[in-house]
Amino acid sequence: MVEEFKYNFFNVTFPAEYVAHVEINRPGKLNAFKEVMWLNLSAIFRRLSHDPNVRAIILTGAGDRAFTSGLDVQAAAEEGSTLSPSSSSSEDTDPARKATALKRHIAAFQSCITDIEKCEKPVVVVLHGISFGLALDMSLACDIRLTARTTRFSVKEVDIGIAADIGTLSRLPKAVGNASWIKDVALSARVFSADEALRVGLVSGVFEDKGGAVAEALKLASLIASKSPVATMGTKELLNYSRDHSVADGLAYTAVWNAAMLQTQDIKDAMLSGLQKRKPTFSKL
Amino acid sequence: MVEEFKYNFFNVTFPAEYVAHVEINRPGKLNAFKEVMWLNLSAIFRRLSHDPNVRAIILTGAGDRAFTSGLDVQAAAEEGSTLSPSSSSSEDTDPARKATALKRHIAAFQSCITDIEKCEKPVVVVLHGISFGLALDMSLACDIRLTARTTRFSVKEVDIGIAADIGTLSRLPKAVGNASWIKDVALSARVFSADEALRVGLVSGVFEDKGGAVAEALKLASLIASKSPVATMGTKELLNYSRDHSVADGLAYTAVWNAAMLQTQDIKDAMLSGLQKRKPTFSKL
Amino acid sequence: MVEEFKYNFFNVTFPAEYVAHVEINRPGKLNAFKEVMWLNLSAIFRRLSHDPNVRAIILTGAGDRAFTSGLDVQAAAEEGSTLSPSSSSSEDTDPARKATALKRHIAAFQSCITDIEKCEKPVVVVLHGISFGLALDMSLACDIRLTARTTRFSVKEVDIGIAADIGTLSRLPKAVGNASWIKDVALSARVFSADEALRVGLVSGVFEDKGGAVAEALKLASLIASKSPVATMGTKELLNYSRDHSVADGLAYTAVWNAAMLQTQDIKDAMLSGLQKRKPTFSKL
Amino acid sequence: MVEEFKYNFFNVTFPAEYVAHVEINRPGKLNAFKEVMWLNLSAIFRRLSHDPNVRAIILTGAGDRAFTSGLDVQAAAEEGSTLSPSSSSSEDTDPARKATALKRHIAAFQSCITDIEKCEKPVVVVLHGISFGLALDMSLACDIRLTARTTRFSVKEVDIGIAADIGTLSRLPKAVGNASWIKDVALSARVFSADEALRVGLVSGVFEDKGGAVAEALKLASLIASKSPVATMGTKELLNYSRDHSVADGLAYTAVWNAAMLQTQDIKDAMLSGLQKRKPTFSKL
Amino acid sequence: MVEEFKYNFFNVTFPAEYVAHVEINRPGKLNAFKEVMWLNLSAIFRRLSHDPNVRAIILTGAGDRAFTSGLDVQAAAEEGSTLSPSSSSSEDTDPARKATALKRHIAAFQSCITDIEKCEKPVVVVLHGISFGLALDMSLACDIRLTARTTRFSVKEVDIGIAADIGTLSRLPKAVGNASWIKDVALSARVFSADEALRVGLVSGVFEDKGGAVAEALKLASLIASKSPVATMGTKELLNYSRDHSVADGLAYTAVWNAAMLQTQDIKDAMLSGLQKRKPTFSKL
Amino acid sequence: MVEEFKYNFFNVTFPAEYVAHVEINRPGKLNAFKEVMWLNLSAIFRRLSHDPNVRAIILTGAGDRAFTSGLDVQAAAEEGSTLSPSSSSSEDTDPARKATALKRHIAAFQSCITDIEKCEKPVVVVLHGISFGLALDMSLACDIRLTARTTRFSVKEVDIGIAADIGTLSRLPKAVGNASWIKDVALSARVFSADEALRVGLVSGVFEDKGGAVAEALKLASLIASKSPVATMGTKELLNYSRDHSVADGLAYTAVWNAAMLQTQDIKDAMLSGLQKRKPTFSKL
Repeated sequence: MVEEFKYNFFNVTFPAEYVAHVEINRPGKLNAFKEVMWLNLSAIFRRLSHDPNVRAIILTGAGDRAFTSGLDVQAAAEEGSTLSPSSSSSEDTDPARKATALKRHIAAFQSCITDIEKCEKPVVVVLHGISFGLALDMSLACDIRLTARTTRFSVKEVDIGIAADIGTLSRLPKAVGNASWIKDVALSARVFSADEALRVGLVSGVFEDKGGAVAEALKLASLIASKSPVATMGTKELLNYSRDHSVADGLAYTAVWNAAMLQTQDIKDAMLSGLQKRKPTFSKL
Repeated sequence: MVEEFKYNFFNVTFPAEYVAHVEINRPGKLNAFKEVMWLNLSAIFRRLSHDPNVRAIILTGAGDRAFTSGLDVQAAAEEGSTLSPSSSSSEDTDPARKATALKRHIAAFQSCITDIEKCEKPVVVVLHGISFGLALDMSLACDIRLTARTTRFSVKEVDIGIAADIGTLSRLPKAVGNASWIKDVALSARVFSADEALRVGLVSGVFEDKGGAVAEALKLASLIASKSPVATMGTKELLNYSRDHSVADGLAYTAVWNAAMLQTQDIKDAMLSGLQKRKPTFSKL
Repeated sequence: MVEEFKYNFFNVTFPAEYVAHVEINRPGKLNAFKEVMWLNLSAIFRRLSHDPNVRAIILTGAGDRAFTSGLDVQAAAEEGSTLSPSSSSSEDTDPARKATALKRHIAAFQSCITDIEKCEKPVVVVLHGISFGLALDMSLACDIRLTARTTRFSVKEVDIGIAADIGTLSRLPKAVGNASWIKDVALSARVFSADEALRVGLVSGVFEDKGGAVAEALKLASLIASKSPVATMGTKELLNYSRDHSVADGLAYTAVWNAAMLQTQDIKDAMLSGLQKRKPTFSKL
Repeated sequence: MVEEFKYNFFNVTFPAEYVAHVEINRPGKLNAFKEVMWLNLSAIFRRLSHDPNVRAIILTGAGDRAFTSGLDVQAAAEEGSTLSPSSSSSEDTDPARKATALKRHIAAFQSCITDIEKCEKPVVVVLHGISFGLALDMSLACDIRLTARTTRFSVKEVDIGIAADIGTLSRLPKAVGNASWIKDVALSARVFSADEALRVGLVSGVFEDKGGAVAEALKLASLIASKSPVATMGTKELLNYSRDHSVADGLAYTAVWNAAMLQTQDIKDAMLSGLQKRKPTFSKL
Repeated sequence: MVEEFKYNFFNVTFPAEYVAHVEINRPGKLNAFKEVMWLNLSAIFRRLSHDPNVRAIILTGAGDRAFTSGLDVQAAAEEGSTLSPSSSSSEDTDPARKATALKRHIAAFQSCITDIEKCEKPVVVVLHGISFGLALDMSLACDIRLTARTTRFSVKEVDIGIAADIGTLSRLPKAVGNASWIKDVALSARVFSADEALRVGLVSGVFEDKGGAVAEALKLASLIASKSPVATMGTKELLNYSRDHSVADGLAYTAVWNAAMLQTQDIKDAMLSGLQKRKPTFSKL
Repeated sequence: MVEEFKYNFFNVTFPAEYVAHVEINRPGKLNAFKEVMWLNLSAIFRRLSHDPNVRAIILTGAGDRAFTSGLDVQAAAEEGSTLSPSSSSSEDTDPARKATALKRHIAAFQSCITDIEKCEKPVVVVLHGISFGLALDMSLACDIRLTARTTRFSVKEVDIGIAADIGTLSRLPKAVGNASWIKDVALSARVFSADEALRVGLVSGVFEDKGGAVAEALKLASLIASKSPVATMGTKELLNYSRDHSVADGLAYTAVWNAAMLQTQDIKDAMLSGLQKRKPTFSKL
């Protein structure tokens, strides 16, 4: 029996067999992120990654107004975060030492977001409402991006004097096949629509409203969760690996990967079920 | 005088000057692939690669129903293929030894499909009807993908418990600029249409029916075949190389490549023909 | 006070605060390029790269007929350029020595075009009219590509017996997410339209005519120039770096980059201006 | 005032200013490693990495007989480790699921050892006595390898049917410039001496006995700890980065790194101290 | 029962259990290579790679005078080889077409030599007497290099106007840790001795004469052949992979590799034999 | 007739046919480098790279006391160099803007030193006397390193609070096959001897004194200059390329390179001269 996880700013529920739902839950603040939140996020995805009861995940934001408005700059200032420009509490004024502290902080933050990508199970994200800054960093670490028609997207960072550093600039060139558009939105910080996001390939589905998008995400996650987890885990891993390597390297890694994975009982089970036109059952992973 | 090649499951003809047509010919079985077929396919493309009478190639499937439905799973089982889940004929039960046999088999299969990509001459593929599994592995190793409007595509492998390992997962992230869509179709195995394939950039042309698509492919191949083979061979090679390397590496390789190729007589011939508004003739390559 | 630069075939003006406008100025010859022109182009962009009065650049072609028709083949022949097929003035007939001369020449030419990409400031290019060959090499080294609706594009090189070697073949696979279309236009040299360029993702905006496109480019460049130059310079650099590296490498480089850049005063200035709803002022870079 | 860390199988002491000494402390079992030990090791090095009181680290093994004899195979069996061949407690017999469990386990183990390499502060290791298997995995993740003359080294893994997977095979080709010798010792598992290790370049210093080597390691660590920590941290990082990248990439990363680090006050302090022939004092990092 | 292979210029024998001996057999011509010979060589190593009766291989040259003097230039000329400068039989004088023929030829030749490296089983080579040109290309594709004291080595190619292109220049920088020495011998073509080869790390053992070296090679191959073939095959593969990738990539590939290979029965067999101090028996691979 | 080049701090002479001698000429200041000097150095090597009268180069330092003591820190301070800690003349105090200036400066300096490596002709360097800091940066960009027995080497940078950033840390891991020793000398800044440099593989020859080393360098350069310049230029380029790429990439680049270069007349000339036992003459490159 799957228990629901408890975190301060996240709801983790299990709405369907083998499907987990992670909800960012700070709607009063437009789901803006404080440091504890991305540490939570990382912990959740590391746990789901190895949870044998989970084969697909959906990630959403609570409330109607925002998936997330991005970093909670006010909280960052109060926490004395190194990312915050007002963290003058630090008595250290040596730029090299400040740089060292900043580098550690950025790397830790990046690592938390990358834990979504490293999660072995496919992640479907639903963007809605305000989806600024961190919304893109996070969703680009997910596998499938769906959205409501009214979503307002922005790579917002340049508007506060920052080049986005938690993943957007590293993942966009591999996720969207229009380099001119990428530079346009990243340099101008302009707001763009769901239809534009679909047209350029940032998302793969636009739905009438948040509810419709979440319903579709759940349906898609359930479909993925009905497949062999050996096959879906491998598909995610091999696509991610190939994105970052040459085709020759991708093929070599794939051959070694499947040398183990093709030995699974799931293949026989899947084929037999196909012939018998019934739903297969796969053992836990 | 060009002779037609004879292979059990392929027709190789020469419908226009410098154009070869490779047809998968097992329509009674939806052009499903047995092991001998991908060995044949490799032999054909290695031969065409160096054939001085060939400057462009089209690849199609015989019959109306399918480009290919993918691997012939039944034949695989009978052949005792290591890929087949029912290959229990092997007395060896050590997972490491099984893995070694599987790795050899996957690598050999990958290598045959990659021979299309390594073929020096541009390859235009026409997808039609059922185009599942191996249909994508193969067509992603081709240069230009055209399709009939009614084609039904699917990255089918997860439905039989497998992460696709003959090339689809390694080449898709470099061929299509919508990472979310790639994960969607690869994880769900859902069937998608020609119009969707065009919209996301998997194909570059959709035609009313197979006949129309093949006619267009032949026209395009003939156009390519009318150019200097030094120029078209180089264009294919440099685009493939650059796909897998940084821009700086791509430029360096290009400079070395053209250091030889710009010495060709074809440049003078092409320019003079252009001035004289007549069709140039290039010597064989 | 910013002075206008003087070059034989270029106008460099400063139409708005922190915005430079580079205009290719050889309209009588369809802005075709002679060797001196790409040397000029390089000099201009290297100068603008470090010019503290410049934060964004637009690149256009003079006249109504062409952004550029490409290399001025006639001039190349007269100059005895190694690229020209008629450069028989060279007494050297050893193919290895010719190859060495060609390699040096190609590398020098590539390097000049790459200086646009290396320019620290974002570059918006407007393509119009005839935009053949070098038009693509150059515009692919720019950051944002806008175009007039009537532009006629072509990767023209194969029509003169050449595989494009000044950047098009190295950058296209990273700029456009439809590998089939890339091969199609690069192998066929066919002319394609602005709408097609927009649909596949080669450009990110199509406007009614050249005037409209230039107006939009100026507006976009002005918007970019109004942001912190630390943020926009970083955004360009990190996107270019990430295009050529794995996500993991991109993230690592980003963390080191921002370790210095997040120490800027611009962040405080940008945030305060945001709160006060006024336009921020950033010191020169 | 620096406190000593308490861990079950490690002593962490601070024998000199800014120098930490990590001692593997299970001499009764030849310092063989149980799972808890590499988890401890990782925790220690992650802590020391950011400890402002630490600028250099030495790593040694307790007792006279062994730096470490490697993995404690018996304990692994009892713990039901997936690495252990006798871990038949697992009821799961599906090879793909076993592979998944093994991959997670290996990756976790690798990550712990890599934490030595990721530690920002330079690490000097002293090998002595029996130094088998894991001794090489660990010491290759350290920066400087010193040894006693009587040390007996072995890449022992093939003798128990395993290709070494915790780092030795990945790091040896980058650490030692004799590929033939690397293959020799890794394939034969033969024991080799300290003098041989010095001759081929696996270690950089051989001393009469363990005591002498530890004394030298402490002296060297103290010397390193007397330098600017900004400079030594950067030197370690840039050498590690360059090992894994092209020279061009190494130079680019270096330029960005030092763009921040050259702003340190340490440079002025170091130079002034040099002129005044006194020992400089650097603030904490 | 293992049969001996028959090839025109090679003897393949099986001097010990699981050990194959490949002897280059053209002593009357100093074992100089004709085209048929490297095609033979490739066939032999591809066959041994998958031969379950082979776990280690030694490669030697027949006769006292030479391992090999390199390419048989006279035969190359007679065969009309494209590599030969006197192959004026070709009527084609277009430098681009000649370049295409040369590139195909070089790639085919490289591929044959690389088949030694790709051979799954470890290869010990013994160099003796004249070991020029191709002797280095071939031996650098082997795993372990032993030599007689009187061997005369030379990277001979520059003396005939050629930069070595069959592997020496690509593999030397990864095999020997003295870049200055590599450039010295490759640019000067000077003859160097076995002792020098040992000192710089090109070989890992020098023996009094050819007989002594072959005896040692056989002993070493027999030792390797006595280990688990799963472990030795993996060790060769993982070292080769890591040579060409970053440490992070090497570790990731290793984890996937061993996810399958650690499931082998060989580990239990090896450990039990170790405890019982008897020689283990492993099933065939 | 070759003229001698005139530069303020360098002598460029032509002591033998096709051999250039570049001498650092500021002996009164231990050949310490001011900014103008590395700009000069770059200009010289770019010029020699394409000079048809040059086929090999030697680089030495004037005077008995030092090859170079490194950067002239005093001059750097006076020049207001950004590298200098005392360059407080800059009124700009924003760390991001300082970082930008520093990054530009470092990149420009690196680029000058890299021009030695990019020089098409092989470069033999002779180190003698004090060879600190920049001495290593420069000599690692050369091809062959020879030295006098009394040379005192040091990677000196950490002693002034800096991680070496002009090339030493990027090139050392590819030039010397003892990673432990590299970290030792780079982290400790200790002085090491010529014999130690030879033992670890930093240099390939040690001679009694500077005179002996220069004589040997001249002899070696003359030998290289007597070979086909097509062959030696290719050998340098292919070794440098392979150092930074996988073996597979190295082989592919090599095949394309030699596709042009094997068409040279030099091969026939070299072979014929070999048969006739006379010195060949090659045309200029």
